[in-house]
Amino acid sequence: MYSFRNDYSEGAHPKILQALADTNMEQTVGYGQDPLCLKAVDLIRRLCAAPEAAVHFLVGGTQTNLLVIASALRPYEAVVAAHTGHVNVHETGAIEATGHKVCAVQSPDGKLTPALVESVVTSHTNEHMVLPRLVYISDTTETGTVYTKAELTALRQYCTRHGIFLYLDGARLGSALTSPENDLTLPDIAALTDAFTIGGTKNGALFGEALVLAKPDGHFRWHMKQRGAMLAKGRLLGIQFQALLEDGLYLELARHANELAFRLRDGIAALGYPFPVASPSNQQFPVVPNAVMDRLSAMGYEFEVERAVDDTHTCIRFVTSWATPEAVVEALLKDLASI
Amino acid sequence: MYSFRNDYSEGAHPKILQALADTNMEQTVGYGQDPLCLKAVDLIRRLCAAPEAAVHFLVGGTQTNLLVIASALRPYEAVVAAHTGHVNVHETGAIEATGHKVCAVQSPDGKLTPALVESVVTSHTNEHMVLPRLVYISDTTETGTVYTKAELTALRQYCTRHGIFLYLDGARLGSALTSPENDLTLPDIAALTDAFTIGGTKNGALFGEALVLAKPDGHFRWHMKQRGAMLAKGRLLGIQFQALLEDGLYLELARHANELAFRLRDGIAALGYPFPVASPSNQQFPVVPNAVMDRLSAMGYEFEVERAVDDTHTCIRFVTSWATPEAVVEALLKDLASI
Amino acid sequence: MYSFRNDYSEGAHPKILQALADTNMEQTVGYGQDPLCLKAVDLIRRLCAAPEAAVHFLVGGTQTNLLVIASALRPYEAVVAAHTGHVNVHETGAIEATGHKVCAVQSPDGKLTPALVESVVTSHTNEHMVLPRLVYISDTTETGTVYTKAELTALRQYCTRHGIFLYLDGARLGSALTSPENDLTLPDIAALTDAFTIGGTKNGALFGEALVLAKPDGHFRWHMKQRGAMLAKGRLLGIQFQALLEDGLYLELARHANELAFRLRDGIAALGYPFPVASPSNQQFPVVPNAVMDRLSAMGYEFEVERAVDDTHTCIRFVTSWATPEAVVEALLKDLASI
Amino acid sequence: MYSFRNDYSEGAHPKILQALADTNMEQTVGYGQDPLCLKAVDLIRRLCAAPEAAVHFLVGGTQTNLLVIASALRPYEAVVAAHTGHVNVHETGAIEATGHKVCAVQSPDGKLTPALVESVVTSHTNEHMVLPRLVYISDTTETGTVYTKAELTALRQYCTRHGIFLYLDGARLGSALTSPENDLTLPDIAALTDAFTIGGTKNGALFGEALVLAKPDGHFRWHMKQRGAMLAKGRLLGIQFQALLEDGLYLELARHANELAFRLRDGIAALGYPFPVASPSNQQFPVVPNAVMDRLSAMGYEFEVERAVDDTHTCIRFVTSWATPEAVVEALLKDLASI
Repeated sequence: MYSFRNDYSEGAHPKILQALADTNMEQTVGYGQDPLCLKAVDLIRRLCAAPEAAVHFLVGGTQTNLLVIASALRPYEAVVAAHTGHVNVHETGAIEATGHKVCAVQSPDGKLTPALVESVVTSHTNEHMVLPRLVYISDTTETGTVYTKAELTALRQYCTRHGIFLYLDGARLGSALTSPENDLTLPDIAALTDAFTIGGTKNGALFGEALVLAKPDGHFRWHMKQRGAMLAKGRLLGIQFQALLEDGLYLELARHANELAFRLRDGIAALGYPFPVASPSNQQFPVVPNAVMDRLSAMGYEFEVERAVDDTHTCIRFVTSWATPEAVVEALLKDLASI
Repeated sequence: MYSFRNDYSEGAHPKILQALADTNMEQTVGYGQDPLCLKAVDLIRRLCAAPEAAVHFLVGGTQTNLLVIASALRPYEAVVAAHTGHVNVHETGAIEATGHKVCAVQSPDGKLTPALVESVVTSHTNEHMVLPRLVYISDTTETGTVYTKAELTALRQYCTRHGIFLYLDGARLGSALTSPENDLTLPDIAALTDAFTIGGTKNGALFGEALVLAKPDGHFRWHMKQRGAMLAKGRLLGIQFQALLEDGLYLELARHANELAFRLRDGIAALGYPFPVASPSNQQFPVVPNAVMDRLSAMGYEFEVERAVDDTHTCIRFVTSWATPEAVVEALLKDLASI
Repeated sequence: MYSFRNDYSEGAHPKILQALADTNMEQTVGYGQDPLCLKAVDLIRRLCAAPEAAVHFLVGGTQTNLLVIASALRPYEAVVAAHTGHVNVHETGAIEATGHKVCAVQSPDGKLTPALVESVVTSHTNEHMVLPRLVYISDTTETGTVYTKAELTALRQYCTRHGIFLYLDGARLGSALTSPENDLTLPDIAALTDAFTIGGTKNGALFGEALVLAKPDGHFRWHMKQRGAMLAKGRLLGIQFQALLEDGLYLELARHANELAFRLRDGIAALGYPFPVASPSNQQFPVVPNAVMDRLSAMGYEFEVERAVDDTHTCIRFVTSWATPEAVVEALLKDLASI
Repeated sequence: MYSFRNDYSEGAHPKILQALADTNMEQTVGYGQDPLCLKAVDLIRRLCAAPEAAVHFLVGGTQTNLLVIASALRPYEAVVAAHTGHVNVHETGAIEATGHKVCAVQSPDGKLTPALVESVVTSHTNEHMVLPRLVYISDTTETGTVYTKAELTALRQYCTRHGIFLYLDGARLGSALTSPENDLTLPDIAALTDAFTIGGTKNGALFGEALVLAKPDGHFRWHMKQRGAMLAKGRLLGIQFQALLEDGLYLELARHANELAFRLRDGIAALGYPFPVASPSNQQFPVVPNAVMDRLSAMGYEFEVERAVDDTHTCIRFVTSWATPEAVVEALLKDLASI
């Protein structure tokens, strides 16, 4: 039995656990203002070439998304997101619970473009409608695609022209940065967005998202506390990001996940199963006959059912991670070939 | 240098770290529905003699408080809390951010009584005012006091009579349960409240509050997700509570904290410093001359400044924890005696 | 110059003003609990054959919509609406500001069907997504169409089966009830919905919506006050609805509006201009060449621009009302013919 | 039978009704952007000597209060109000429903001073607490007292020094401006506050508050729409304020109310009944034996019961208005003398 359901099925990379153990009995002040967090903040600023940026550590992704959005917008302002965007469908109305509408726009590949954003902006013309003022994108997207530097630059330019806040949800930023289709660096992303996250939960940490704000908001910690997003032992987040980022572990883990995803993708494709949307990252979405899907399940492989394609075919999702053993991928391909 | 600022200045008790390491590479489903969490849920139900109760694991206290309150109340309903209550003053308006007023009532010792609650209830008489419908108490309270069984029973009866939800914030429940003034058991508390928490953060866990709901709300997980309070690797919470509760570690750690607090209290009192409110738990609030306070700081002891008593005296707070070494307490007393 | 922009371009029907003048110096208690309101409540219950219904008077439509929705839903629950629904696009995120997501579904004619609602319900399957729990419809719809008894009955049955609250926004209910395509009566609507409104603002009142709740919510007045929706001199609403409803004035005014709309529609159609969606009510949406549109404007006719159809054609909206003079319609048709 | 319960027991002053009738059949655009509203806006700017101010017309007081506060504050910011303040106790948590805490401070006479505000500001010191950022005062206050120019100036200076928004709720501003203790003018108030209202509902209008914002918020109309506070036939508000303010009617009506209140106060005082708080405005609060209170009721006089003073005495409230006949006041005094 092996689960390809997600990239957060295990605990943490052993180096993370070790870092927590190593610092365990140090006494520090709480709430993320301890020396361990400050050190991680410095490291992230350096990696992003953004010495003026504010860095905050949060426990989870939905928490981070709702915080960034609630802190960036006035009550009547709204979010623009792809219809597949995490904030649109997978957060139980977390954004709306802070009072803000999410204006979803159909996207063929999970990405937004200036033209897609423009279609929302131009249809909201007066005080009887919300004012779209924040663009939410994710990289990798929920469908596994990644942004190029040209694409992100185009969005940046559009947003700047229209006074729109550009937020990139990097829950799977490691997988994006190590994707063969990626040409963005951390400094690029820091320079091109108003806020973005470096996701830890899905790339080897126990939990945690590092939020980078290009323009510090002097009261962001008030927002955090108000939404229940300030961890008492905030240092736990700093320690983990220090361990992930100080020696390149973050990219190394993501590269492993991607490589196994591509091995899986190529193997499945070689067996003739189609992939409707090409994914250059650690989520792969093949379409298989329902009988094949059932056999794979019976063999002990776990995966997500993405959607029914027709009466006899289903699009399923395999996710690889830092922890996925190569042998399991090979076994799956062999088992699949045998069906 | 030693900090008595709080009971969450270190990481976690070594058994917690060990439990996390032991289970680290197990694959589980996410969001708290894994076997490790289910096992901890069962344990808590058993310890509380509450087989029908719902148990949810949350990361932090403010998060838990706002969730319980937002899920229990209709929009026009309000909370009754002591003026010292954590939800009233120390959560940056987290409750109000979910739309609910906190009706604060002056309390001499941080506790609520039926009479104090009644004073709020009877002054809210019609649709031009909020409807008080949830009583928030903490045990231990923010001033270190604890509820007796008679006191909690009286509140329960009042709340039942008036259709009011009774919620006990047990961020420091370990210290309360092991206090010499306590006569409540977990089953008592489970029977007498509508919801309560067993706090982990302040008693040896890395983080975590176990929330026990007497009457399960079938959609509580929807509330959790919406407020960003659902941990992806939810198992981390189950693992910790299992370790804390399976062999009595939870009470053992709290007992240690209390004993050192009493040693500290008795030693300080013996030196002639008064304690305005007697505390039978791990927070102690002596009043010292400012000069003494400054000397203690200069000697490397850290503590919270609670409030200025007069121009030359200050009430300060010492908090002991599972991690406080006896030797440090003795050293502090010796140093204090030398001033 | 004449405006067909809307059905609330004038003050009120003279009988409304007279009723306000007649009762002006009577002293009553405030907030809608006076004898004048109670009398109107009784009248509405009688007209709806709903003696148990609760009736509340509100000043405006958005106010009423946000109130009904905020009072009916729990925080994680959501609204299903047609993409054209007023709550989706024309209320500046008023529903989201109360914390609830609006799940919009593409509708060909502004109406919802069980199948359309089902498509939303079945795609929201777990605690990571909102729970659709209220269906919002309007009659007439924003595109002028009306529901038949069979259609409303089908929706009712679907909602009952799925525990969904069915709310009908009757801002233009007069126009619906007097439409040739309508076969619904007030008692039908009261029996088939959980809540609906009888709109006054767009049918001869100075302002006002009468909200009918099938199941009274004992604390609805608390909701009203909290949202700033309780009029101090609440009687003003009761007086107006009494005047509108006691002698059939309400339907008489709506019938006038419809008749002139049909005269307009038939005249415009006779000139060869198409109507993409057939409307049996007081809003008419012809498509005209831009040059014709500009000429009409230059002649002093005002109307809404609905949307660009192509580079040279625009869909425009004409709205007639209780106050529209027949002569103006004839003049417009003559002028249009002359272009 | 006569009611002294409130100053909104009747409809409107006849000149208001006449103004509505006179303009009834004019066609205008909706939502407060018509020529009638623009004319009233100009008039108010002129009367306030505030040509740059924004003026918005709202239907009710709670609606206006929640709008001003929600538009002025960031999520973690809070209101400072007297414990008697309308936003604190009489609006069913309307402010909290927009997410903001009201920090109430005990006030001996319903007024705030820099010292009282300071006591709140200095006790909110870090990100674990809300940030007080708006001072709410009312003039007249809920206890009938009025602010002097010196008092308002002192508050202004305090607020400016601390970056605090100063909002004056003028629901009874007419009574304040015509009080013998008042030395403030409309231009004074416009210059000394960030926002204030000129209340219509309690001084002769059918309904309506004119809100004056010293610094226009370009998106205030978005806020209005979102909260359901934009009246479709917005002109109804402009027409009423034009009628009230163009020829001094507003002050004339308030002066009448005050004079009758003083006649009532002096007559009651002459009979030996005490007034715990001296009120120089149209609300009067004598203390009477319960037997006297009951006899007055039996004689057909209606008034509010403010609070029990002791077992045998009650503080009651009489409110006079533009509509109170002198003869009724004399009759009440005669009847009271006969008890």
